[in-house]
Amino acid sequence: MKKAAVIMGSDSDFAVMSKAVKVLKGYGIPTEVHVYSAHRTPKEAAEFASQAKENGFGVIIAGAGMAAALAGVLAAHTVIPVIGVPLKSAALDGVDALLATVMMPSGIPVATVAIDGAKNAAYLAAEIIALSDDALAKKIAADRRAQYEGVLAKDAAIQEKAKEL
Amino acid sequence: MKKAAVIMGSDSDFAVMSKAVKVLKGYGIPTEVHVYSAHRTPKEAAEFASQAKENGFGVIIAGAGMAAALAGVLAAHTVIPVIGVPLKSAALDGVDALLATVMMPSGIPVATVAIDGAKNAAYLAAEIIALSDDALAKKIAADRRAQYEGVLAKDAAIQEKAKEL
Amino acid sequence: MKKAAVIMGSDSDFAVMSKAVKVLKGYGIPTEVHVYSAHRTPKEAAEFASQAKENGFGVIIAGAGMAAALAGVLAAHTVIPVIGVPLKSAALDGVDALLATVMMPSGIPVATVAIDGAKNAAYLAAEIIALSDDALAKKIAADRRAQYEGVLAKDAAIQEKAKEL
Amino acid sequence: MKKAAVIMGSDSDFAVMSKAVKVLKGYGIPTEVHVYSAHRTPKEAAEFASQAKENGFGVIIAGAGMAAALAGVLAAHTVIPVIGVPLKSAALDGVDALLATVMMPSGIPVATVAIDGAKNAAYLAAEIIALSDDALAKKIAADRRAQYEGVLAKDAAIQEKAKEL
Amino acid sequence: MKKAAVIMGSDSDFAVMSKAVKVLKGYGIPTEVHVYSAHRTPKEAAEFASQAKENGFGVIIAGAGMAAALAGVLAAHTVIPVIGVPLKSAALDGVDALLATVMMPSGIPVATVAIDGAKNAAYLAAEIIALSDDALAKKIAADRRAQYEGVLAKDAAIQEKAKEL
Amino acid sequence: MKKAAVIMGSDSDFAVMSKAVKVLKGYGIPTEVHVYSAHRTPKEAAEFASQAKENGFGVIIAGAGMAAALAGVLAAHTVIPVIGVPLKSAALDGVDALLATVMMPSGIPVATVAIDGAKNAAYLAAEIIALSDDALAKKIAADRRAQYEGVLAKDAAIQEKAKEL
Amino acid sequence: MKKAAVIMGSDSDFAVMSKAVKVLKGYGIPTEVHVYSAHRTPKEAAEFASQAKENGFGVIIAGAGMAAALAGVLAAHTVIPVIGVPLKSAALDGVDALLATVMMPSGIPVATVAIDGAKNAAYLAAEIIALSDDALAKKIAADRRAQYEGVLAKDAAIQEKAKEL
Amino acid sequence: MKKAAVIMGSDSDFAVMSKAVKVLKGYGIPTEVHVYSAHRTPKEAAEFASQAKENGFGVIIAGAGMAAALAGVLAAHTVIPVIGVPLKSAALDGVDALLATVMMPSGIPVATVAIDGAKNAAYLAAEIIALSDDALAKKIAADRRAQYEGVLAKDAAIQEKAKEL
Repeated sequence: MKKAAVIMGSDSDFAVMSKAVKVLKGYGIPTEVHVYSAHRTPKEAAEFASQAKENGFGVIIAGAGMAAALAGVLAAHTVIPVIGVPLKSAALDGVDALLATVMMPSGIPVATVAIDGAKNAAYLAAEIIALSDDALAKKIAADRRAQYEGVLAKDAAIQEKAKEL
Repeated sequence: MKKAAVIMGSDSDFAVMSKAVKVLKGYGIPTEVHVYSAHRTPKEAAEFASQAKENGFGVIIAGAGMAAALAGVLAAHTVIPVIGVPLKSAALDGVDALLATVMMPSGIPVATVAIDGAKNAAYLAAEIIALSDDALAKKIAADRRAQYEGVLAKDAAIQEKAKEL
Repeated sequence: MKKAAVIMGSDSDFAVMSKAVKVLKGYGIPTEVHVYSAHRTPKEAAEFASQAKENGFGVIIAGAGMAAALAGVLAAHTVIPVIGVPLKSAALDGVDALLATVMMPSGIPVATVAIDGAKNAAYLAAEIIALSDDALAKKIAADRRAQYEGVLAKDAAIQEKAKEL
Repeated sequence: MKKAAVIMGSDSDFAVMSKAVKVLKGYGIPTEVHVYSAHRTPKEAAEFASQAKENGFGVIIAGAGMAAALAGVLAAHTVIPVIGVPLKSAALDGVDALLATVMMPSGIPVATVAIDGAKNAAYLAAEIIALSDDALAKKIAADRRAQYEGVLAKDAAIQEKAKEL
Repeated sequence: MKKAAVIMGSDSDFAVMSKAVKVLKGYGIPTEVHVYSAHRTPKEAAEFASQAKENGFGVIIAGAGMAAALAGVLAAHTVIPVIGVPLKSAALDGVDALLATVMMPSGIPVATVAIDGAKNAAYLAAEIIALSDDALAKKIAADRRAQYEGVLAKDAAIQEKAKEL
Repeated sequence: MKKAAVIMGSDSDFAVMSKAVKVLKGYGIPTEVHVYSAHRTPKEAAEFASQAKENGFGVIIAGAGMAAALAGVLAAHTVIPVIGVPLKSAALDGVDALLATVMMPSGIPVATVAIDGAKNAAYLAAEIIALSDDALAKKIAADRRAQYEGVLAKDAAIQEKAKEL
Repeated sequence: MKKAAVIMGSDSDFAVMSKAVKVLKGYGIPTEVHVYSAHRTPKEAAEFASQAKENGFGVIIAGAGMAAALAGVLAAHTVIPVIGVPLKSAALDGVDALLATVMMPSGIPVATVAIDGAKNAAYLAAEIIALSDDALAKKIAADRRAQYEGVLAKDAAIQEKAKEL
Repeated sequence: MKKAAVIMGSDSDFAVMSKAVKVLKGYGIPTEVHVYSAHRTPKEAAEFASQAKENGFGVIIAGAGMAAALAGVLAAHTVIPVIGVPLKSAALDGVDALLATVMMPSGIPVATVAIDGAKNAAYLAAEIIALSDDALAKKIAADRRAQYEGVLAKDAAIQEKAKEL
């Protein structure tokens, strides 16, 4: 099975990005975790991405805040899919990271998910890897089914709760 | 090879979304094109997505404007990756479509690209399909190389042009 | 009397959306409450909306956050009025939900109220149902009168309070 | 049948707001059209709204731009549903009018549609009136069906068109 | 001396708007304080503004949040200057109120100050009244001088404080 | 009668700011017009404002775009009211100028009008000067009446026009 | 060695701006700290900037919030580089200060850093001064190296931490 | 004299960025012009920046649009000052490029100028180089003086022009 990488621009992003790691591990996807900064360790970031394909990675998840260049910089050095997670920072509510991640120029795509959407980044990574792994595809489908049933259960519960209003 | 689907919410989106189709065809990826509307033909959209996997699709690209629900609605009915292209509409410069596409709730990811970023959606789709197709991966890498050389050529040209200033 | 439905995308929306339920119950409008997700239980959402008219509903209130597709998806399956309540989420202060709810394409309207405006959604629903129910119309008018008198009382109070400044 | 009113803040809004009038007339809904300004003829606006119910109106559509107070001012004087259409003006792309229309305080709802969404305002008005008029409800449903078939036709056409790419 | 009025849309605005009252009282400007709502007591608001001039008012300060129509509605009924204070509300950080207050259509101006800028509204009101009251003009100038000296003192203090860094 | 000044940051602002001059001249208010730049001729701007009161000015209107510091800089040097007109520039639709004009710190107010709202700046200036000039107050009231009647005429006309739809 | 100045618009900005002072002192750059307000002590601000060059300053850092005119006003009076730090204020998350600082008209540049980016302002100031001071340039390069090694260390640490997930 | 570099992300940026080149050449500053893309030729961009100091550059100007990573990527590889010019692109009016350029993380500053502010980038570069070049400093001061006189001339002209209104 192809591996997944979860890269974050700063170790302070771990609280959010660890959610992606947990989802990936829950699916049994071998996952490597790194702190690489597009601005402080650009060479390491570039090297990791350049060799990701031959090192057996199928997808890279990159989370960064502010002028979030990380996902784009990784994408510039690989042709495996790169998923960008814009992270909320002290100011601007994550809008800066969202635009810096999603508005990529033509030729170098970044698959962007919601602000702080680390979990969805992992689900998307799993969907991508599952294209050539039916067992994983079934796990994802089962998860969706569980989500679905969870909502049904909540629907039943809320009807009871609403009676008390 | 897995197929790609390019879905748009309205035939007026064809001018932008056809760029994705051209890139996919250029890569030799079998591509189906549809107009499905999350609000006007929701059943057809849902059915297409529900059966996409068993119908041999590996990725769905969905382009829509305004309250762009299309990509999310398709993603809700499949576990293959869905790529969302937020489209500029008459008002709001595409910000509405960007937020409506990218801010998906946990569990149902949409891989969002730039506003009107149909080309990048296709490149991303190709990268995803190429994970299990080495010949395609090589074509994408060759394309990147050509992009790279194109910029080198432009760098040389601009140095000449700048002399005239 | 026509019934009202209050649908929310997640049970975590109940704190806000229960305010709509209380207003509706206060008016004696029979109200059904559900958790349906546009993305996790799209079929149930669609079915509910499709049958809402024949099941005696006169109006549907739908509250959702982020890429808030719920109101639009419900509106796509019914010709009774759908009122959308954009909900604030962790990021973006509700702007994402506002745009995803209000910027509907031509043909499928959603009557959008303020961010977290569940109460006004209920007042609007009541106004709609009251068009064919004079007793309800009188209750709403009495409520307005009470609001009006409440402001007059506050005006008197504030004049006193301002003297102490 | 209850009447509809289409009010605009300036006669320069007619190009957009006349689309609402046409939809309403197409449904056979008796429609009155006025220019009332929340700021220039506030008394006339207030009087119209105050008497709208007894004058046989079931719904008021109000379109205004910039600091679009019109819909709110009308809503303040009636308990029949008021639909607000935020209009694009010279600056700010209609965001000013959208926020000024939709962010109503609790107690006085305005059913807001998209920026320049005059057509949807009329469809929403028709849905509201149709709650007590089955013939109208059938016309709206037929329109939806036509929309639906229109999209199916466009889907077929686009598949042909895409072959030429 | 002409009087000043401080009007707020809700008594919950008193915490901010009382700052304006204090500044005005500090200047010895006779000040009346009211809660009038553009949407809940529109008639009282209109009447107050209509009679403000003949009742001896020289300026009206109006503070409101969300779809802040209050200042505009007052301005519509008087030709004395109306100063608008956009107030922060639960969502949107006051941007809604700012746009709803400042983007007035041609013919009916509102002198808008910063979000929650009640103090500056009072200073502006004082400047306006002082045009025909030299004693007041001198008080304002003295205040400016005090501000000026306050900053000089802070400059001296910060130079000391910075030595400890 | 007190004089009015219309200051603009660049002569390219004349197309918009001349509208203010025309309104003021129409009211017979003696008006001086200047190009002063907060950044290019800061001393001249400061001097003008410092001496404005003793030179017989009752109000200053200042129009500027982008990081529109002009109105604030003038306000810093005078205690007569300063009205700011945020001007649209090449980028950002005037939002930059609006925020740079209206978000003044406590103590130095700027009476801000709409983006490109030069006319309303002049109406506001006239209202301020009219506080001690009854003849002018009557002219303004007459203008309002004319506006009012203009809307009534447009209302009548639009009713005719709507019949043809 | 050229001196640096750190100017802030209010002493309440010291918490953020002192970070710049510390970085500069850490580099051994002689630093002067002042509170000057573009609106309350404009003359002192202008004088400081006018004489900054002959007083031996090589760079001025200016931090201000809201309608942040300070950096621009200083830049207007000197030809040494002025670095602007937009500061977050009570409302608007610093967007007002960012636009008021960065959107300078042609001819008077302000080198703008991130919202609350006082540290980077100091690093930038150091880079500028280091152009003619090799020892300082080496200190900055060493700092970058330390940053780089810090990220490498965090990368190693996070890989351990991720194993526990 | 230290050299300046003007780097742009795409040759389509030349129309705007050539304005910087002209200003620099006008000052007699030796200037090199390049097209380097953070995403398409990241290695060349990094190499240029890494060697810029030893190659005699004193400042780098970098212009890019959309997810404008270029200035940050260059800044990551050098300790000479990097000036970022956010460029307007098809969507979003340059806000994306502004935020992606200015919101740099601590440690790696980018001196950001206005959207499309290539001229000011060059003036800022000249100011930086002039710190150790008195002749250049005098040229810049002369330019400022010319700007100043230009505004005085325009002030005189506008006073004439205003008489005709």
